[in-house]
Amino acid sequence: MKQLWLFSQINSDLQRVEKELTKFVETDYPILQDSAVHLLAAGGKRLRPAFTLLAGKFYGYSLEKLIPVAMALELIHMSSLVHDDVVDASMTRRGRPTVKANWGNIVSVQTGDYLLAKSLMLISKIDHPEVARILAEISVEMCQGEIQQIKCSFDVEQNIKQYYYRIKRKTALLISACCRLGAIVSGAPRRQVWALGAYGHSLGMAFQIVDDVLDLTAKAAEFGKPVGGDLRQGIMTLPMILALKSSTNPAHLKTLLRKVDKTDEEVLETIGLINNTGAIDEAMHLVDLYVLKAKRHLQDLPQVPTRKALEELAEFIRVRKF
Amino acid sequence: MKQLWLFSQINSDLQRVEKELTKFVETDYPILQDSAVHLLAAGGKRLRPAFTLLAGKFYGYSLEKLIPVAMALELIHMSSLVHDDVVDASMTRRGRPTVKANWGNIVSVQTGDYLLAKSLMLISKIDHPEVARILAEISVEMCQGEIQQIKCSFDVEQNIKQYYYRIKRKTALLISACCRLGAIVSGAPRRQVWALGAYGHSLGMAFQIVDDVLDLTAKAAEFGKPVGGDLRQGIMTLPMILALKSSTNPAHLKTLLRKVDKTDEEVLETIGLINNTGAIDEAMHLVDLYVLKAKRHLQDLPQVPTRKALEELAEFIRVRKF
Repeated sequence: MKQLWLFSQINSDLQRVEKELTKFVETDYPILQDSAVHLLAAGGKRLRPAFTLLAGKFYGYSLEKLIPVAMALELIHMSSLVHDDVVDASMTRRGRPTVKANWGNIVSVQTGDYLLAKSLMLISKIDHPEVARILAEISVEMCQGEIQQIKCSFDVEQNIKQYYYRIKRKTALLISACCRLGAIVSGAPRRQVWALGAYGHSLGMAFQIVDDVLDLTAKAAEFGKPVGGDLRQGIMTLPMILALKSSTNPAHLKTLLRKVDKTDEEVLETIGLINNTGAIDEAMHLVDLYVLKAKRHLQDLPQVPTRKALEELAEFIRVRKF
Repeated sequence: MKQLWLFSQINSDLQRVEKELTKFVETDYPILQDSAVHLLAAGGKRLRPAFTLLAGKFYGYSLEKLIPVAMALELIHMSSLVHDDVVDASMTRRGRPTVKANWGNIVSVQTGDYLLAKSLMLISKIDHPEVARILAEISVEMCQGEIQQIKCSFDVEQNIKQYYYRIKRKTALLISACCRLGAIVSGAPRRQVWALGAYGHSLGMAFQIVDDVLDLTAKAAEFGKPVGGDLRQGIMTLPMILALKSSTNPAHLKTLLRKVDKTDEEVLETIGLINNTGAIDEAMHLVDLYVLKAKRHLQDLPQVPTRKALEELAEFIRVRKF
C-alpha cells in the first residue's frame, strides 16, 4: 500500500486497518476470496480510512472505535468500484485487470454485494445509531448519482450543475461521511462534526475534479488506468463541459464527445482539443476554490497537529499527479 | 397483487405494505423508477411481508413497527432477484464489451443497489439493534450462497449437501428472518422468536424445493416463467441430483445436464428423463418432511388463530402449483 508521508500521524494505524480488512474479507469461497483480495491488493490510496482516522483525532482518538468505521467506509467504496466496473466496462483499475475483466459480470456483482454485506456487519455493531442512518442515506444518493451517470452518458448537452450533482454523489458524500463519522464515534461536539464533514465534502469535490482532469492529462503508467477512459465511456466531465463552452468549434468537439466507440486517435484528438481551450486550467481553478473552501472549514477546528495534516492533505489533493 | 385467501388475517395490512413500498421506492430517475416499479408490479406473492406480519401477531401486533421491517425484507428479496438476473455480458466487437451491450446489466446492478440502499434506510431507523445485525449476517450468507451457485453451475457431480447449503442461503435464511424479526419487533419472548425462526427456516427449505420441482413440472402459464430455466442456467437442483442417483443411464443424463446451450428439445428430454426416475416424488417427500418439521415448531407457540394461518401456509407451500 502506498504510504503518503503526510499520513505519518496515522501510518501504523492505517496499516492496522489494512490488516483487519484483509482478515475480515476472508471467505471459504475462492472466487469471492480471490476477487476481494485482488481488490485490496490493487491497493488504492486508502484515503477514506485515512480521513476517518484523522477526523477522529480532534477530540478523543479511540482506534478501536474508529477501525470498524474506517473498514466499513473502505468496503462501501470498494463495493461501489466493483459495481461501477460492471457499469463502465472498464478493464483495469490501477493497472491491474478488474474483477470484471477476470471473471465476468456475475462475479463482479456478487463480489460487490459481498463487500457491502460485510460492511453492514460492521455498521450494525457500531454503537452510534447515527452512523447507520448516515451511511444508508449516502448509499441511496450514491445510487442516484450512478444512475444519473448512466442516463447522461454521451450526452453532450450536460451542464455543470448536472456534473456537480454527480460528483457530489459519486465521491464527495462518502468522503464527507468519513470525516463526520470519524468525528462522531470519537465523541466530538456537533460543531466539529459539521466542520469536518464540510471539509470532507469540499475536498471530495476537489478530488473528483482532479481525477477527471488527470483522466485527460496523466501519463497512463502513473495513473494506473488508461487515459481517456471517461471519453470512451461517455462520461462528460468538467473539462469537457468547459471546453465546449469556450471551444471555437464546439460542433466538431461535440461530434467527437458523443461518439460511442472512439478510436485511439479520436481519443487523442479530443484530448488535444480540450487542452487547447484552456478548460484544464479553468477546471484546476475550480479545484483551487474547493480546496480553499475545505481549508476554511478547518478553521472551526482546534489548532492541533492533525489540523495541519488535513491542510496538507487538501494541498496534496490539489497538486497530485496520480 | 395475488391475494391468497389464507392471508385473510392480514389482507388489508399487506395492502398497506404494498402501498408503502410503492411510495417508498419513488425516485426522480425514470430508469430507476421504471425498473423498481416494474418489479413491484410483477407482484410476486409478497410472502416475505406476509410471514413478517403473521409472526408479529403472536405477542403484541404493532403494524407501525412491522411495516418497515416487512418493507425492508421485501426490498432485500427484490434486490437479490435483480442481481441474480445479471448475466455474463458476451464480449462483442474486437473483444471489447460495448457500453450499449451492457445496458440491461447496468440497470440491473444499479436497481438492485438502489433497492438495497432503500432497505438500509428503513433498517437504520428500526429501534431494535438486533434487526440490523441479523440482516447483515444473512446478507453475507446470501452472497455466499449465490457465489456457490455460480461456482457449481453445470457441475453434475454436486451432492445434496451442496444443494441444501445453497437453498438455505438463497431462500430459507431470509424467510426465517422474516419470522424472527416480525416476532422481535413485536416484543415476543426469546422462545417464540426462536420457534418462529425455525418454522420459517424449514418452510423456506420446503418452498425452494417446491420451486425447483415446479421449474421442471409446471405449466409455464401458471408458473409465470419458462419451464426448465434451471436446466438452461446449469443450476443443479434436488430433482436433478436425485435423478442422477436413481437413473438407469446416468451418463446420458449427465451429458444433457452439463450441456451449456440446450435446445428446447434437449430441455424437454431432460425433464422427461428426470420424471422417469421418480426423483420428483422423492423430492416432494423431502418437502413433506420439511413441512412437518415446520409445523412441529409451531407447537411451541400459543394456540391463537394466527398459528392456524401459519399451519395453512405451510400446507399451501407443500401443495402449490405456482
